[in-house]
Amino acid sequence: MSAQGEEGAPWGPPYVLYLGSAADDLSIKTARGLAYWRPQWCLGQYRREDCAVTLGLRDVGLAQSLADGARTMVIGVANAGGVMGPEMIADAIAALEAGLHVVSGLHHRLNDDPDIVAAARSHGRTLFDARAPRPGIPVGTGKPRAGRRLLTVGTDCSVGKMYTALALERSLRRRGHRADFRATGQTGILVAGSGIPIDAVVADFISGAAEAISPARNDDGWDLIEGQGSLFHPSFAGVSLGLLHGSQPDALVLCHEPTRRHMRGLPGYPIPDLMACMEANLAAARLTNPAVKPVGIALNTSSLPVDEAHALCERVGALFGLPCQDPVSMGVEAMTDHLLASFAK
Amino acid sequence: MSAQGEEGAPWGPPYVLYLGSAADDLSIKTARGLAYWRPQWCLGQYRREDCAVTLGLRDVGLAQSLADGARTMVIGVANAGGVMGPEMIADAIAALEAGLHVVSGLHHRLNDDPDIVAAARSHGRTLFDARAPRPGIPVGTGKPRAGRRLLTVGTDCSVGKMYTALALERSLRRRGHRADFRATGQTGILVAGSGIPIDAVVADFISGAAEAISPARNDDGWDLIEGQGSLFHPSFAGVSLGLLHGSQPDALVLCHEPTRRHMRGLPGYPIPDLMACMEANLAAARLTNPAVKPVGIALNTSSLPVDEAHALCERVGALFGLPCQDPVSMGVEAMTDHLLASFAK
Repeated sequence: MSAQGEEGAPWGPPYVLYLGSAADDLSIKTARGLAYWRPQWCLGQYRREDCAVTLGLRDVGLAQSLADGARTMVIGVANAGGVMGPEMIADAIAALEAGLHVVSGLHHRLNDDPDIVAAARSHGRTLFDARAPRPGIPVGTGKPRAGRRLLTVGTDCSVGKMYTALALERSLRRRGHRADFRATGQTGILVAGSGIPIDAVVADFISGAAEAISPARNDDGWDLIEGQGSLFHPSFAGVSLGLLHGSQPDALVLCHEPTRRHMRGLPGYPIPDLMACMEANLAAARLTNPAVKPVGIALNTSSLPVDEAHALCERVGALFGLPCQDPVSMGVEAMTDHLLASFAK
Repeated sequence: MSAQGEEGAPWGPPYVLYLGSAADDLSIKTARGLAYWRPQWCLGQYRREDCAVTLGLRDVGLAQSLADGARTMVIGVANAGGVMGPEMIADAIAALEAGLHVVSGLHHRLNDDPDIVAAARSHGRTLFDARAPRPGIPVGTGKPRAGRRLLTVGTDCSVGKMYTALALERSLRRRGHRADFRATGQTGILVAGSGIPIDAVVADFISGAAEAISPARNDDGWDLIEGQGSLFHPSFAGVSLGLLHGSQPDALVLCHEPTRRHMRGLPGYPIPDLMACMEANLAAARLTNPAVKPVGIALNTSSLPVDEAHALCERVGALFGLPCQDPVSMGVEAMTDHLLASFAK
């Protein structure tokens, strides 16, 4: 991974992470993802006086952060609805005036705000909206391409698909393998420095976007592709299926949160059975890669006592005959072992 | 169906169908669909001198068509790439100047052409792009809704899904049932006078668009929803799945072209087995409507001799235990019988 923004783009690390007036941990999910996975890129955090949370980074002012070497301010905080309040708009303009580029993971786009756009122009700075797909994404071709790809799929939204893909990237790299996380959502895109927000592309281009995210590679390395949604989520399954087809995955890891009672946001929809979910993903994946294999199960066990979490992983692992781990509390080494063994030359 | 454009919109029939300099039948597919399914709306056709095709309608000039009562000119012709040449742009402006509204099924949008937009504004006329989704489509909820819905699904793109849904609408109406075709593509939208081009919505909103296309109904009527793509098309399956989930269909008709050798545009991808395709659609549809039933198979047998076509329909019908017909050459009455019998109170 290069320590750059999108290829050729002027924005990139070192970053100052904007937390603004964030009231709770959930609202700084994007900033936390960046600070956790790319601490070497994060020079400090910028908080307003009423900010109730911290990433544990050094607090910096905007001018100070520039003097310390920061290049870009990252708006990694979400208000309700993903909108930017007047305060946040003023801060974005202040950052541009101070000489920083500004990137954002908000639904509300920097490039749609005329005052922010004017400030960027007059100060010669760049704006980047992680949730805006780049233009010119082609229709998917389904044409087989070189390289090895693993896709994380899930029983539901928000069950650890990004975290698992990033943990596998780290594990493979530590063992000396080439491996690249491929981002499909705004947090992942800020962590990777590139990617396509797949749920924001026009419907006809979902699989084409997935093909563009993980292009052919001939270096024996792995692409670890961040999954989205679930084939069993009635709101978003189309995104999940297009991503699955376009990824042409050689390997799947199924991600799951065992205490979830129903599909996120939909009380009428139960979480699918793990085995049925894996089978459905494998069946759909075979359309573009008949040789696809399951290589592990990733459970988010943060709501369970430690002994229950381990017992559950053992049970699920035995059921599937695959490594089953919580990537946060147990790591992903068993999955990496199994992946490498399954695809040894 | 009201003989209106989109609800509250000023454009609508009577139409003059613009053929321009069309060179072949394929390029006037949209105009032909409109003339075939809504002849009562089509006052005439407008052709340039070099136009090589006809819809069999009366040839009219733009000013003449207005004097005869036309309200709107429909650009129902496609050049390569869906672009508008300078000639077509000039004709659109001439129609606006003559006092007609202008609607288009082209990929190239009227509303993206500054000269056309300026002409519409200065003459107080309306532009409508059938391929541009309306703003404000919500995320799908999967919430069960009242009414009965039939969705046409397919083994591939362009196998008769729109035609079959329209034929079923006509058949049900002739028998005195309430029935409304629900359009998801540009030709269907011009035929219906409303609808959403589902492949042009942002990926996160596919199932929400399908829910908006076929809202709850309490009049014992049927919505006949135009399917798109195929669960087995590697480029577009995401659209098909989101449409399937959002439609919450009670009934499915599987459409197929028996002489097709591979998925449209993709020589490496064989056409799926009919039974496997039906099963995959039923399995996916059960997520939002567990009671979904298959009610028929529609074959496009236009490339087969008549006796072969009938023999094939008999064979396929026996295999599925369902009516199997070519809607064009054999009608859909057996399917309508079966549909009504399957859902009799």
